Amino acid sequence: MDRLIKAIAEKQNPTVVGLDTRYEYIPSAKIRPGDEDIRGNAKAILEYNKMIIDHVYEYVPAVKVQIAYYEMLGLAGIECFIETADYAKKKGLLVMADAKRNDIGSTAQAYAQAFLSTEITGNELFFADYLTVNPYLGEDGVRPFIQQCAERNKGIFVLVKTSNPSSGQLQDQVLQSGQKVYQHMGNLVGEWGKELIGFSGYSRVGAVVGATYPEELSELRSAMPHTFFLVPGYGAQGGGAADVIGGFDTNGAGAIINASRSVLCAWMREPWKNEYTPAQYGQAARAEVMRMRDDLTDAMRERGVCPW
Amino acid sequence: MDRLIKAIAEKQNPTVVGLDTRYEYIPSAKIRPGDEDIRGNAKAILEYNKMIIDHVYEYVPAVKVQIAYYEMLGLAGIECFIETADYAKKKGLLVMADAKRNDIGSTAQAYAQAFLSTEITGNELFFADYLTVNPYLGEDGVRPFIQQCAERNKGIFVLVKTSNPSSGQLQDQVLQSGQKVYQHMGNLVGEWGKELIGFSGYSRVGAVVGATYPEELSELRSAMPHTFFLVPGYGAQGGGAADVIGGFDTNGAGAIINASRSVLCAWMREPWKNEYTPAQYGQAARAEVMRMRDDLTDAMRERGVCPW
Repeated sequence: MDRLIKAIAEKQNPTVVGLDTRYEYIPSAKIRPGDEDIRGNAKAILEYNKMIIDHVYEYVPAVKVQIAYYEMLGLAGIECFIETADYAKKKGLLVMADAKRNDIGSTAQAYAQAFLSTEITGNELFFADYLTVNPYLGEDGVRPFIQQCAERNKGIFVLVKTSNPSSGQLQDQVLQSGQKVYQHMGNLVGEWGKELIGFSGYSRVGAVVGATYPEELSELRSAMPHTFFLVPGYGAQGGGAADVIGGFDTNGAGAIINASRSVLCAWMREPWKNEYTPAQYGQAARAEVMRMRDDLTDAMRERGVCPW
Repeated sequence: MDRLIKAIAEKQNPTVVGLDTRYEYIPSAKIRPGDEDIRGNAKAILEYNKMIIDHVYEYVPAVKVQIAYYEMLGLAGIECFIETADYAKKKGLLVMADAKRNDIGSTAQAYAQAFLSTEITGNELFFADYLTVNPYLGEDGVRPFIQQCAERNKGIFVLVKTSNPSSGQLQDQVLQSGQKVYQHMGNLVGEWGKELIGFSGYSRVGAVVGATYPEELSELRSAMPHTFFLVPGYGAQGGGAADVIGGFDTNGAGAIINASRSVLCAWMREPWKNEYTPAQYGQAARAEVMRMRDDLTDAMRERGVCPW
């Protein structure tokens, strides 16, 4: 995670913008419903993503691209995913592919190669610096991703405690050992990452821990000292600065907070819809990104862990 | 699952051919290593898949396409995935997308739309009759897929007990209730599927249970009377007819057995490599498919559950 931690320090901003871009989030959807024209929608989303990136790349270290919204548009959507990632990379941003891939070893190896390769040939391959991974299959389903991280200087975030309402249905189940499933998984992720701890003290094997469960987030921060957290759930899902602050360590490192809809749809929400016209969605997104950065910085200062 | 069960009865064969087609599995890889030419590889894989489909479509009810091997080839690979699925559909086969998708509700909804839509426009959209789903996030991450199944007459297979060696690291953990995680998950899957039980007695919400754990397979068959099983792990992963037989109910229904590498690579293995030249890989695949069908039929007859 050293690259990510360095980029966060440079931007003085531990947040990542999620490009979960649905066509409905785009101002042009108000004019042209567009449900019938998948290629047109994908093209409009790519333009929208580029404009968002243009407006935020100086303020955030990374973008997270949620591939589901691109797969929904078929082949044209995948092209849009690849071009969005490529554009972000050219703007100096780190790219997280939020794809939650998982399978048995031989197949996980194919996914790892798909997302974490470095040989980019003419915008035809998937590209990411980081990938989210689902651990339901256990170690041999995760090991090929870790291998790729080791060889290519990439990183993964393994799902530990997710932000959704029913995450507890499996993850909060108590084992006979007294541990909950997410704690058991946290331990495993810590073990798996041991060999890839960088000079920052954090491993290339990170974890996903949701902002919507602040107690679990603080608890896992203590239990997993070498595991960097990707924290979704801030903003539209309901988490605020007070909810995510427990994800940071005493140096204000250890976590990056994601916001997607609150940034992408800033132009249609208070207060930005009063300040900006729909055509100024880029400015609205930037204003929301800066508000979020300041919100987190204030919370970190209050806690005495702000590094800048 | 009624459509699948009907197709199995028509072909008198409860097996599915997995098109997990790596370039190395293709005879032409012996001549042209091809690592450098992704588009060329994808094209060769599509031709190979079509030839396999041509040779087996009269004998099997379905194909399962593992998307990881296509994502590995980037955009050209996705095109190959879509065209493979489309070709299989045109040959009257049911198509399973093995993608193990998972996410929070709003995003799961996008995945569900991506894979289980019915509006096919000019080979540009993903297409499947069935999709594999990972349940680590709990019910609200699975519900959108179930909703799509209800609306579109499609089906899903939720991971319960996977075939890989380390599946027990999470799935075999014992909960305080005394249940193992996979049993807990089996119960949930049974609950989730209750509203979508067809006239066959099986729900559109199925489960993945690996052939490599025959005891758990038999046990889950009893515990989940309305859940149809997709059973991977036969053939190259080590499972045989004796291992999978417990997945069938007393009528010989209730499960479909997948084989991938043993069919795709039949041309390079005993006994088929003695019978067929590499150019006759289609015949070798067909011979292996028929051998597998007969192997299962014999085992079902022995057990007194063969319906044909």
